[in-house]
Amino acid sequence: MLTVHHLNNSRSQRVLWLLEELGVPYEIKRYERDPKTMLAPPELRAVHPLGKSPVITDAGQTIAESGAIIEYLVDKYGEGSGLKPAAGTPERLRYTYWLHYAEGSAMPPLLLKLIFDKIEAAKMPFFIRPIARGIAGKAKAGFVTPNLRAHLDFMEGELGKSEWFAGAEFTGADIQMSFPVEAARA
Amino acid sequence: MLTVHHLNNSRSQRVLWLLEELGVPYEIKRYERDPKTMLAPPELRAVHPLGKSPVITDAGQTIAESGAIIEYLVDKYGEGSGLKPAAGTPERLRYTYWLHYAEGSAMPPLLLKLIFDKIEAAKMPFFIRPIARGIAGKAKAGFVTPNLRAHLDFMEGELGKSEWFAGAEFTGADIQMSFPVEAARA
Repeated sequence: MLTVHHLNNSRSQRVLWLLEELGVPYEIKRYERDPKTMLAPPELRAVHPLGKSPVITDAGQTIAESGAIIEYLVDKYGEGSGLKPAAGTPERLRYTYWLHYAEGSAMPPLLLKLIFDKIEAAKMPFFIRPIARGIAGKAKAGFVTPNLRAHLDFMEGELGKSEWFAGAEFTGADIQMSFPVEAARA
Repeated sequence: MLTVHHLNNSRSQRVLWLLEELGVPYEIKRYERDPKTMLAPPELRAVHPLGKSPVITDAGQTIAESGAIIEYLVDKYGEGSGLKPAAGTPERLRYTYWLHYAEGSAMPPLLLKLIFDKIEAAKMPFFIRPIARGIAGKAKAGFVTPNLRAHLDFMEGELGKSEWFAGAEFTGADIQMSFPVEAARA
């Protein structure tokens, strides 16, 4: 049976959503991060050397990377589901674009914001803290926030042109994009 | 004719390489970043709202995001080129994986290293500099460098199993992966 290897506080929610949409039976194996290092346990690294989630195993194959997992599942189980636009259409082009854009372009500025927010909030000696906050604040104002705003404006603009990311129909691209959209809202 | 919109100091080298492999005629339009802000000029933002490169225009369509561009070009012009493994093979699964992995997983820790290196090297008042270097050094030692090492070990391990990223043959995945591999070497 298809197995979703789920690490707490990770990006595997999208894979579960897609499996539900496709009506594919699956089981979940849960893994807990080390509460100190926040790293994945060795058991997950035995499934995939990077110890990242989402990872799925299906028919003897291990598949990682959310965009690749979505492509795999929709290609293998999605016939007739409408979750992937037909080849050669503008919708298909947009589908592929958003699958890559979500992690390749939308997530990096969100990751930077998270890191500089953490630096700003970190406990430090009183004579270091204002300097650390100054550096983090400058980085955010200088390139993190403007970049993030450009991405949000872009997504907003694209969603103003059509109901869903790839066009008039809900597709796997909307599932893939749900993570950066939720992360941006948070 | 297919146009590659090339911004100096960007990621469009891979697209040119792929077009040469495919033997597709193209023209290059050059854009220069503002030397102060390092932002793309308004002309590039007229091609694509994010003002990022690579972007191509072909047959009235604008395509951005390196992984999506590679998929588009190989699908449209690559029949018989061997640059995309056949559907349903393990090689095809790995091809799709690396296309997503390059920007979705390999680049973020490289971006973080670049940013913390810049913070370490930045000109600052003498009483701030050691603190800034301390924060950047701690971030690098704590999570940037170990994460980067895990990715390099992983790529090295995978390339130990087969000649090229997707298997025994050179594919579009190797072109896509050339950027993080070169960035890691730098």
